[in-house]
Amino acid sequence: MSHMTLEYSANLRSEGRLGELCRKLAQFMTALRIDGAAVFPTGGVRVRAIACEEYCIADGTAHDAGFVHAVLKIGAGRGDAAKQATCAGLFEIMKEHFAEQFSKQGLALSLELNEFSESGTLKHNNLHARFKKP
Amino acid sequence: MSHMTLEYSANLRSEGRLGELCRKLAQFMTALRIDGAAVFPTGGVRVRAIACEEYCIADGTAHDAGFVHAVLKIGAGRGDAAKQATCAGLFEIMKEHFAEQFSKQGLALSLELNEFSESGTLKHNNLHARFKKP
Amino acid sequence: MSHMTLEYSANLRSEGRLGELCRKLAQFMTALRIDGAAVFPTGGVRVRAIACEEYCIADGTAHDAGFVHAVLKIGAGRGDAAKQATCAGLFEIMKEHFAEQFSKQGLALSLELNEFSESGTLKHNNLHARFKKP
Repeated sequence: MSHMTLEYSANLRSEGRLGELCRKLAQFMTALRIDGAAVFPTGGVRVRAIACEEYCIADGTAHDAGFVHAVLKIGAGRGDAAKQATCAGLFEIMKEHFAEQFSKQGLALSLELNEFSESGTLKHNNLHARFKKP
Repeated sequence: MSHMTLEYSANLRSEGRLGELCRKLAQFMTALRIDGAAVFPTGGVRVRAIACEEYCIADGTAHDAGFVHAVLKIGAGRGDAAKQATCAGLFEIMKEHFAEQFSKQGLALSLELNEFSESGTLKHNNLHARFKKP
Repeated sequence: MSHMTLEYSANLRSEGRLGELCRKLAQFMTALRIDGAAVFPTGGVRVRAIACEEYCIADGTAHDAGFVHAVLKIGAGRGDAAKQATCAGLFEIMKEHFAEQFSKQGLALSLELNEFSESGTLKHNNLHARFKKP
């Protein structure tokens, strides 16, 4: 269960191409390997974006400004190298995706990692079977 | 203060009947009793769903796939039996609600429990008075 | 990085003036000073609201009821006085903003504080430079 949620200001909706960004981030996660082993099972990855119609950035005077805040939730227990590679890789994709906007308007990108104990979670998922390596 | 938030992929919007699901989950919580005592005060229960228009599940190749991820936040201090009964009961309702979709399309359901300290929270709520038992 | 997210029931959308509320809350945060020092750097403040189309409050019988739940996330390390002043001030603004609705319909307002370790976060933000004091 590896979840990424992007909250973003709705002024980025059209130019931000958030659907495409979700795809890039998910594909990075499903492809990531450390010492040859997959860090995240493919069937457990879910990336989504939520547009916020109402928002205020800083004191509200930066009228062109936008934001994207990513919360990444992963099961606890992965090593520091895996977590480091995950966060750095995902954030690099976000920065590259918004490079043009960053150069011409106010923009705040951020990413926050949360680890949770798998013991407190419940799952019912038919995707793992589909993506099981033969 | 007992909050449940369902983030779901927008492809489930019409067939998923999320409004109905919110109602079932809230009514389970308000009716739940352990040793004859209500686990959650009726006036403090709030269940809601947020549709995510942009998302990517697994590596993006499972085009029919959907997801519902539930975050349940409750005040700390309840016993293990109450937490177990709450999570198991809520998740059973989710699975039953989506049984048909689960049998015919890619679907990932999950539930995550968060306990928070009531000391860091503020409330202003006129519903408790309405639902106070006479 | 100081984030506030308001989840609210969609029945408050028009009368709730959430955009205006976001502005008031953000301006309170950027203006807040303790012992003459700013508690939150202006360029790091982001307040937003997310309308929930599907929801159930209490057991679903309070048909007029609405809710606004605020999650405030701030970097760990601020003193108790700063945190107290922040939460109390923000919640007072929420209560005042909704005073009329509170007097005439079911309404549940709540605020929850989360502190996170800045070490687990990544940022790329061109707003700090703009708001830097000369």
